[in-house]
Amino acid sequence: MKYGRFESQGNIFYGIVDGETVNELEGSPFETCRPTTTRHALSSLKILVPCVPGNFYCAGLNYLAHIEWVNARKGGNLKPPAKADVGYRSNNALIATGETIVIPADAPGPVQYEGELVAVIGTQARNLSEADALSCVLGYTLGNDVSDRGWQASDRTLWRAKNCDTWKPMGPFITTGLNPMNLTVSVKINGQPAAEYSTSKMLFSAQHYIAVISKYMTLWPGDVIWLGTDNATLPDLKDSDVCEIVQKDIGVLRNRVARADA
Amino acid sequence: MKYGRFESQGNIFYGIVDGETVNELEGSPFETCRPTTTRHALSSLKILVPCVPGNFYCAGLNYLAHIEWVNARKGGNLKPPAKADVGYRSNNALIATGETIVIPADAPGPVQYEGELVAVIGTQARNLSEADALSCVLGYTLGNDVSDRGWQASDRTLWRAKNCDTWKPMGPFITTGLNPMNLTVSVKINGQPAAEYSTSKMLFSAQHYIAVISKYMTLWPGDVIWLGTDNATLPDLKDSDVCEIVQKDIGVLRNRVARADA
Repeated sequence: MKYGRFESQGNIFYGIVDGETVNELEGSPFETCRPTTTRHALSSLKILVPCVPGNFYCAGLNYLAHIEWVNARKGGNLKPPAKADVGYRSNNALIATGETIVIPADAPGPVQYEGELVAVIGTQARNLSEADALSCVLGYTLGNDVSDRGWQASDRTLWRAKNCDTWKPMGPFITTGLNPMNLTVSVKINGQPAAEYSTSKMLFSAQHYIAVISKYMTLWPGDVIWLGTDNATLPDLKDSDVCEIVQKDIGVLRNRVARADA
Repeated sequence: MKYGRFESQGNIFYGIVDGETVNELEGSPFETCRPTTTRHALSSLKILVPCVPGNFYCAGLNYLAHIEWVNARKGGNLKPPAKADVGYRSNNALIATGETIVIPADAPGPVQYEGELVAVIGTQARNLSEADALSCVLGYTLGNDVSDRGWQASDRTLWRAKNCDTWKPMGPFITTGLNPMNLTVSVKINGQPAAEYSTSKMLFSAQHYIAVISKYMTLWPGDVIWLGTDNATLPDLKDSDVCEIVQKDIGVLRNRVARADA
């Protein structure tokens, strides 16, 4: 099942997406919800970010080929993380599919996409084992962890390297019933294939991340865990590019890029 | 004026604190609000965290004497940051005054307090100059940036070193009309003075942090910026301690400490 969050004529609601039709829900999948008799054409709705998380977790360096590519590109010597330490992103940066990624005029660049699988928490959880970890997940969506590699190298923290307004596209929908460890995530730039990887290559599984986080932290409905990216993240994003993160069961997270005027 | 967020008989509401009395508000100070005719005895209410931020910013290493103390304690060589790069904390860890800081059984320690001034954003803002920066601030509250120094040294990120459930006490109230650069913040452990500093010693001012953040990020009502701590953060916290962060115009953020059973 695919859940989406939509706006129509000033009303914001959740719905179940079935092809080109959306069945409006009363309530939300994070609390209680039930179908209404209202149906919309998907094309008539503005698609919103599927949730606004209370806690915005991310996995850093969770794929070996991406680490090796970073090392090759920068002549660096990043090691695969010895354990699943989590990082954070921030809600100011969230945008929905169809909205524009704006690169500030003073961003040193290069600015790059990172196509990621995102686990969306559906039920409150603490102290889950890996075997039970996925029981708290509502479903999966896609994220684009847009990053300025210049700021990533120069700044002490990842604030503007990762969290400028518009730099966290997320969506389009939350799909239930998927195996997070066996999905193909691909990226297109201007319609051309740019990157593709299998989530089976995660260094630390979705289950492991959830178990580790929930040992110390209560996971809340609507929290998200971005699970990292593999391989190179080229070509660099430039003004007017269209960047698409694609997974066949979730959909296409499509965002145009604009460079802000100085 | 002092705003607080309260619960009484299952109702959650904002109020204006006047001595031992709370004037209940309709709405919240982050949107529109107006006083009602309802008054409560402060002692009859449960004090809640004064807001749940959409974006939870923090200043790292924002006082020189604290950096020098860290270096002396660890034989390290931390430099004062060259610029105001911001970090993040996470909502799972928030607790109100009166609630208990729980130290996980496997926390290596030492676990220490950090008493901090917190700027609470009241109005949406982007691209503020330092001269205008405080125009978006509703008021100021207190935070206790509870930290496990062992995990802070061993982990690649600050997730469990700083963000275990209950490790971000915040409150008790939001006080308007203060000069954030001329306040005395003090800490008591079990009623005994433990630390005290003046916010005039910030390396980067509240105004500077707000201007820098808002250059790249929209600040939203309810966002918080924790502004760092000065000096030593001793003694280490241990089971049954009572830790109080005190500022005379804001109040006392008081939390008992409990070590979880193994």
